[in-house]
Amino acid sequence: MDFESFFKNELDGLHQEGRYRVFADLARHRGDFPKATRYTADGTQEVTVWCSNDYLGMGQSSIVTEAMKRAIDECGAGAGGTRNISGTNHYHVLLERELADLHGKESALLFTSGYVSNWATLGTLCSKIPGVIVFSDAGNHASMIEGIRHSKCERVIFKHNSVADLEAKLSAADPRAPKIIAFESVYSMDGDIAPIKEFCDLADKYGAMTYLDEVHAVGMYGPRGGGIAEREGLMHRLTVIEGTLGKAFGVMGGYITGSAALCDFIRSFASGFIFTTALPPALAAGALASIRHLKGSQVERFAHQERVRRLRSLLDQRGIPHMVNPSHIVPVMVGDAAKCKWISDLLLDNFGVYVQPINYPTVAKKTERLRITPTPLHSDADIDHLVGALHSLWSRCALARAVA
Amino acid sequence: MDFESFFKNELDGLHQEGRYRVFADLARHRGDFPKATRYTADGTQEVTVWCSNDYLGMGQSSIVTEAMKRAIDECGAGAGGTRNISGTNHYHVLLERELADLHGKESALLFTSGYVSNWATLGTLCSKIPGVIVFSDAGNHASMIEGIRHSKCERVIFKHNSVADLEAKLSAADPRAPKIIAFESVYSMDGDIAPIKEFCDLADKYGAMTYLDEVHAVGMYGPRGGGIAEREGLMHRLTVIEGTLGKAFGVMGGYITGSAALCDFIRSFASGFIFTTALPPALAAGALASIRHLKGSQVERFAHQERVRRLRSLLDQRGIPHMVNPSHIVPVMVGDAAKCKWISDLLLDNFGVYVQPINYPTVAKKTERLRITPTPLHSDADIDHLVGALHSLWSRCALARAVA
Ligand SMILES: Cc1ncc(COP(=O)(O)O)c(C=O)c1O
Ligand SMILES: Cc1ncc(COP(=O)(O)O)c(C=O)c1O
Repeated sequence: MDFESFFKNELDGLHQEGRYRVFADLARHRGDFPKATRYTADGTQEVTVWCSNDYLGMGQSSIVTEAMKRAIDECGAGAGGTRNISGTNHYHVLLERELADLHGKESALLFTSGYVSNWATLGTLCSKIPGVIVFSDAGNHASMIEGIRHSKCERVIFKHNSVADLEAKLSAADPRAPKIIAFESVYSMDGDIAPIKEFCDLADKYGAMTYLDEVHAVGMYGPRGGGIAEREGLMHRLTVIEGTLGKAFGVMGGYITGSAALCDFIRSFASGFIFTTALPPALAAGALASIRHLKGSQVERFAHQERVRRLRSLLDQRGIPHMVNPSHIVPVMVGDAAKCKWISDLLLDNFGVYVQPINYPTVAKKTERLRITPTPLHSDADIDHLVGALHSLWSRCALARAVA
Repeated sequence: MDFESFFKNELDGLHQEGRYRVFADLARHRGDFPKATRYTADGTQEVTVWCSNDYLGMGQSSIVTEAMKRAIDECGAGAGGTRNISGTNHYHVLLERELADLHGKESALLFTSGYVSNWATLGTLCSKIPGVIVFSDAGNHASMIEGIRHSKCERVIFKHNSVADLEAKLSAADPRAPKIIAFESVYSMDGDIAPIKEFCDLADKYGAMTYLDEVHAVGMYGPRGGGIAEREGLMHRLTVIEGTLGKAFGVMGGYITGSAALCDFIRSFASGFIFTTALPPALAAGALASIRHLKGSQVERFAHQERVRRLRSLLDQRGIPHMVNPSHIVPVMVGDAAKCKWISDLLLDNFGVYVQPINYPTVAKKTERLRITPTPLHSDADIDHLVGALHSLWSRCALARAVA
């Protein structure tokens, strides 16, 4: 087989569908977020980042960066091994305790990323528990889907956020089979939020375990940043709460929290946990500092919500259509792949505004969008500039306005 | 189902088989590697680490740690997004260029770990290339096995490092089917090395693609640290060379190198690459400094090999049995799970020597061992102390001596 031609053909297909991705090459500026320098073939350009998942700007906070630098001075660069073979550092142990406390659980377990924590945990639960059936929300993230697929267990997809559909599917399943309900709190692309309480009620009724991905909520919701389940007083009703250290906490890594036996079980059996180099001590130290800070401080969460409200109200004033939702994610709807890419290119080239276009397969066709994520560090002027730029493009592009 | 009891039962099984793992909780000391502080329930203890995969001590080198701290000062803590959505940092771009150059390839692609690079790349190649058959060495790492399993493609396991068996299996397969031969250079637990040239000859003869994991060789072999394939002048014959930034390079992260089309294909289709937060700029900057240094300097590689030779000759003098191999890994054979754990505990508690016992399923039953990894930073006194400790335990334990 001519492998090179095969790869090139597949890539041509992406180009033709307008789905080929070009990464923006950025240098973020510590202390000056959301500003960044963009490298292009022709030189560099100063831009404002409007699509970062460093939602609270903690990745730029000296609380985090100083903790990381201190840990580098103390312990060096990498962990030097897997968790079992010389790679466990005292910062990992402290961070796991902090995460367990954050979510009100007995234990926590660190992974190299949120992706790996979902993939490895669901993959292990679903392959190890005999006869288990997993009920998976239709909107679940790729990392959950791949973990479930990998396990080859029986899997039932229920309609996104639908209590009625989940109940119909639970009641149709073998009552003796062990069951897991897997879902997210804040969904990344629409910014909608799951009916956690109702799902937990169903879990009780049908004897299921609950698995909640709070990746887009930890740090940002709840009085201590424990996520939506904390805000709603529901943490104790979830069997597993999963999160990331790479978004609102500003660093990198993933985790689960749950009972001591559950975390020890995953620690002992999950290939994706066992056979990989542990997180560098500096990342654990940075995440620890970030979590501790956000446990005590409301400033970032309040400022974040205020920026989101301000952006939404200015978009409304200009008639720029955006999806209504109860979270911090502002999806500005375009509904066409080529236009979405084109607007994004113009925003970058003519206005120094960087928002990556979100096209199929990340979202459904005809729902292509600009996914905008305001942070506490975006100024009034930044917001005015963004909305002004969108307004002028909306006119040039003959895009539909929102009906007031 | 009572999930808690299920988890506890499974853990009890591990305890009964003597396979339950307890992690040593360490604080490594920058500038004083291989010394570390071990945290226990009763307090702390100073230990010498003898089982780190920071093979050259680069994780403790100021070349690496200063580069990381500089990048933190410039760019902050985390990348703030996936590679596609605001997470590409200029250090990623520079590091990918450096890695492509290191292995003499057109392109490189970064992943969050070596585990993810194997899993995502093999998973994507094997599921996307129609009708592909993968020929996988029986000794391959968990991350390769899981990637291949995940793809559900046809898979043929050949005898570890056996040219004859690989040829028998290639010749028995459908000549029209696309084929991938997947193997490692240095195998982690036995320290033996694959017949790379012969495997490449077979690949040519049967039109197969070659996939080589150089995780335990990059940085340490070859005039520029390009691995065993560089040392043997074979890099151009491999379709994919995969490596880690977490072992000899001393940081964390994984990568593949190959043709521009291949890397672009994986970049565009691999879920485990696309849907996860990118490596922090500081990790990319640290790895970049480490690779650049080891490209030019032979000092670390020579010192490493000399330390390995010295340890082996002292073990031989005392009749401590260790597996002969052409690499830097020194497996001291115990051949019994309980004794292996017991020796390791005594080494730690009575001698301050930390070597994790390696038991089933990482190695076959009856081949339990202490996997010892000397680094350039282990002194003569460290080596004497280790061998003296092993000698005294070998006497107490009535363990077999090697026959001279
Ligand atoms: C819902 C969800 N879960 C998990 C992840 C993966 O987390 P991480 O970026 O830490 O790998 C993401 C995005 O990256 C996500 O959107
Ligand atoms: C052969 C081999 N490949 C890949 C890996 C995974 O690399 P990483 O530790 O960077 O995840 C390991 C060990 O960890 C390994 O031994």
